Amino acid sequence: MRRWLLPEHIEDILPDGARTVERLRRTLLDLFEVHGFEIVQPPLLEYTESLLSGTGRDLDLATFRLVDRLSGRQLGVRADHTPQVARIDAHLLNREGVTRLAYCGSVLHTLPAGMTTTREPIQIGAELYGHAGLEADLEVLRLMSRALAAAGLERLHLDIGHPRIYRALTEGAGLGAEEAETLFHAVQQKDAPAVLAMGAALGEERAEAIARLTRLNGDAAVLDEARKALPKNPAIARALDELARLAREVAAPGIEVSFDLAELGGFNYESGVVFAAFAPASPDALARGGRYDEVGRSFGRARPATGFTMDLRRIASLVGATPRPPAVLAPCVEDPALDEEVARLRAAGEIVIADLSGHDDARAELGCDRILQSNEGRWSVVPLKGN
Amino acid sequence: MRRWLLPEHIEDILPDGARTVERLRRTLLDLFEVHGFEIVQPPLLEYTESLLSGTGRDLDLATFRLVDRLSGRQLGVRADHTPQVARIDAHLLNREGVTRLAYCGSVLHTLPAGMTTTREPIQIGAELYGHAGLEADLEVLRLMSRALAAAGLERLHLDIGHPRIYRALTEGAGLGAEEAETLFHAVQQKDAPAVLAMGAALGEERAEAIARLTRLNGDAAVLDEARKALPKNPAIARALDELARLAREVAAPGIEVSFDLAELGGFNYESGVVFAAFAPASPDALARGGRYDEVGRSFGRARPATGFTMDLRRIASLVGATPRPPAVLAPCVEDPALDEEVARLRAAGEIVIADLSGHDDARAELGCDRILQSNEGRWSVVPLKGN
Repeated sequence: MRRWLLPEHIEDILPDGARTVERLRRTLLDLFEVHGFEIVQPPLLEYTESLLSGTGRDLDLATFRLVDRLSGRQLGVRADHTPQVARIDAHLLNREGVTRLAYCGSVLHTLPAGMTTTREPIQIGAELYGHAGLEADLEVLRLMSRALAAAGLERLHLDIGHPRIYRALTEGAGLGAEEAETLFHAVQQKDAPAVLAMGAALGEERAEAIARLTRLNGDAAVLDEARKALPKNPAIARALDELARLAREVAAPGIEVSFDLAELGGFNYESGVVFAAFAPASPDALARGGRYDEVGRSFGRARPATGFTMDLRRIASLVGATPRPPAVLAPCVEDPALDEEVARLRAAGEIVIADLSGHDDARAELGCDRILQSNEGRWSVVPLKGN
Repeated sequence: MRRWLLPEHIEDILPDGARTVERLRRTLLDLFEVHGFEIVQPPLLEYTESLLSGTGRDLDLATFRLVDRLSGRQLGVRADHTPQVARIDAHLLNREGVTRLAYCGSVLHTLPAGMTTTREPIQIGAELYGHAGLEADLEVLRLMSRALAAAGLERLHLDIGHPRIYRALTEGAGLGAEEAETLFHAVQQKDAPAVLAMGAALGEERAEAIARLTRLNGDAAVLDEARKALPKNPAIARALDELARLAREVAAPGIEVSFDLAELGGFNYESGVVFAAFAPASPDALARGGRYDEVGRSFGRARPATGFTMDLRRIASLVGATPRPPAVLAPCVEDPALDEEVARLRAAGEIVIADLSGHDDARAELGCDRILQSNEGRWSVVPLKGN
């Protein structure tokens, strides 16, 4: 076998791509910072007990396991930052009021989420803790749109859902854990016949209402339709009002909003609104977020929480490569005056590359369009011929 | 057990520390860039065959193993960027001339290197490929010193060694692999009696010369001493000349240079000069580097290579925490004029935090020293009382 082949769904990022990733990373972390979100960096490795505490089965399956040679206990490589950042909010910062945190780092997944999906997303995201009101969801949703716009993706489609509607419809149905999971997946997959087939367990009326949920997706008309089609229930009415308010307040040029009342969120810990952003021609979400008040509970301190996350590799691939700016070549000459001029140019942000002797044939690879030239002891930058 | 405890030698980085890490990361990557080093980002995960190809036993032991659920093959989590970046130089960029690459990312170690050492260093470094001459080592050594100075560590102690001297002394001794390893470790640990005890295998004269090596460390006088104490040999003479030249050319205010002729490098792949930087009061190296021309060989393309690496966690801990700059509070009021002023302040780099209602008691936690106030419909920033 060739030693330099990488595992499937694992990739190097070469300079033109790495420059884009680095630029986006800085732009987004700076954007989060001016919104009051403070950066934290949780570890790549934790005991699986805490890493997977309070999270769902999807995250469990996505997590690589290792054995700790120091403790003999099982470790996991993080597959998601959200539970880690919730742990930091709950136990390390331990603030009483609102806490805003941001992060950026690689995560690993045992299996790719799709045919063209990486197993090493570079997750970047923001989380807002301590506020249960819709203003927090709105702040996070706006920040997500601004982040994508700052990355250069100004035309967006936002899809918003509210799993609390599904919860209100299933509440008191008395399903066992297995039936509950079957129903959850049927709704996630918009499989109305599968929902109706559970009529015996759910009761016919309830099954029909849940089946209707799977068809409630589309533009603002969906909310009116839902008000008519779903049972009268204060929790459902409030959820529909919240969706209408979010859509109204997040509206901006280039942003199109739709609703999906059968969208129940990703890793099973969402407890309020959920949202996802799509580029016009892209079937996979660019960013996902929502409310997940329950995550802190397993650490002994449930706090209201809402946030979003995206994969910088994905965003960078849409934004495109960033070629290196043309550089200045510094000849291989010992002269303190040259060293000074090189230092001055570099301090001003110019890329200056030292020409090491013996590589004249491959000089074009360096990407220099100018060269430092001496004229009566004074060094100045002149165009480099033949480039 | 408490669910939020982390494994030993694994730590979160909280906001005040994460800000320092992020600032240093940017400063150093920018410094590398203006020197012509292009950023790459190799994956966290590779087949162990390629990840550990051509590297030594230390790296092998430091590497966490996993099973790939896609291929059934063994994967390793990277414990060092150097072999990965060499692979990128050898097979992906495949340039003829000089290539300069930089990287920054977490690595994992199965066991900590010392009592107070992390198992998740954030490695940042630079590598120069394709030039065998000492100018390349000098460029890298200078870049390392400049990087530490840019991080704020201006007083440095540089320790330089040249494993080729040891190689010249052991060449043709005909040691078996096990004896060679015993001798290597004895010299690394400056254990002269252990070297002399191998007199039968090495020959007395050779053993005495190698034992003398273990005492050859200190200031410039060491080079003169070595010229007298070591056998006449052109490879040794040239190595001593190279050390003298490096020391002369790297000299700068605040930098103290010493030599250690028994320093043989870290992961066993060094093939030329090796160097390490120390802070005045610190026993552990802050940064390490050297020449390791052999790494590319296992990928079928051995190229001259020299570079250095350091741990941003370590550097950040010496530099200290970065508190958040004071922020501006934006009251919870719906007013497009307020939104505009908030956007203007944020675009100018001010941190503006939205005040969510109901958290007045915990407002001090937000770290705001100013507030936006309306005066006849115009919003302006005024000092926030009680902070």
